[in-house]
Amino acid sequence: MVSQDRALLVVAHGSRREQSNEEVRKITSQIKGHTANVYGHVKCAFLELAEPSIPDGIEQCIAAGAQEVVVLPYFLSAGRHVATDIPAEVAGKQKAHPGVSIIIAPYLGAAEGIVELMLTLSRSR
Amino acid sequence: MVSQDRALLVVAHGSRREQSNEEVRKITSQIKGHTANVYGHVKCAFLELAEPSIPDGIEQCIAAGAQEVVVLPYFLSAGRHVATDIPAEVAGKQKAHPGVSIIIAPYLGAAEGIVELMLTLSRSR
Repeated sequence: MVSQDRALLVVAHGSRREQSNEEVRKITSQIKGHTANVYGHVKCAFLELAEPSIPDGIEQCIAAGAQEVVVLPYFLSAGRHVATDIPAEVAGKQKAHPGVSIIIAPYLGAAEGIVELMLTLSRSR
Repeated sequence: MVSQDRALLVVAHGSRREQSNEEVRKITSQIKGHTANVYGHVKCAFLELAEPSIPDGIEQCIAAGAQEVVVLPYFLSAGRHVATDIPAEVAGKQKAHPGVSIIIAPYLGAAEGIVELMLTLSRSR
């Protein structure tokens, strides 16, 4: 599979505060800059309060040509949003596009490297 | 300054869902295991919905002997909690303990390594 067939969709909660949504868009751009050889398309979507929605984000990836969409939850804890809401949104789109593989990656808070990152931060003040 | 004089306080939002608070406590334990030579005390505290509160967490660190407390916001975006609420809680305690240095580290979402971490996650599914 070539990179143009693969999309990464960063999924965040969404905020009334536009600056928080912009932070997500900025991180998404940074990921895009680092990963063009793996993901031909890198986009973000929001569970609520901001656009695009998760279903719309998945549609954008598929419309751009992705055969595989990796959904990455930008969340720190495995709450209801990660455990239930995101899978439900993904399941709906998976049903609508049986030929596309839509995969949910582990949420950010589950990353092993997060402890190391926090140690680095604590020393960077 | 020896490690016993230094404390790291991981500050999270707090959740009605106890499992989310436990995730924070677990990460705090992991940090403790990696950093005993730097921080003699590693604790967590919550802005709301869970115990201890941030002022109580800072008090615990000082009671344990810390002369320096590094407060690390376990937040992904620089919203009101990071920009206003946490600094206000810290300022109150700083006033009560002028001889102790209480420092706020950058919040987790500001960490440079977060992009790398998300790339690793996207490949670990």
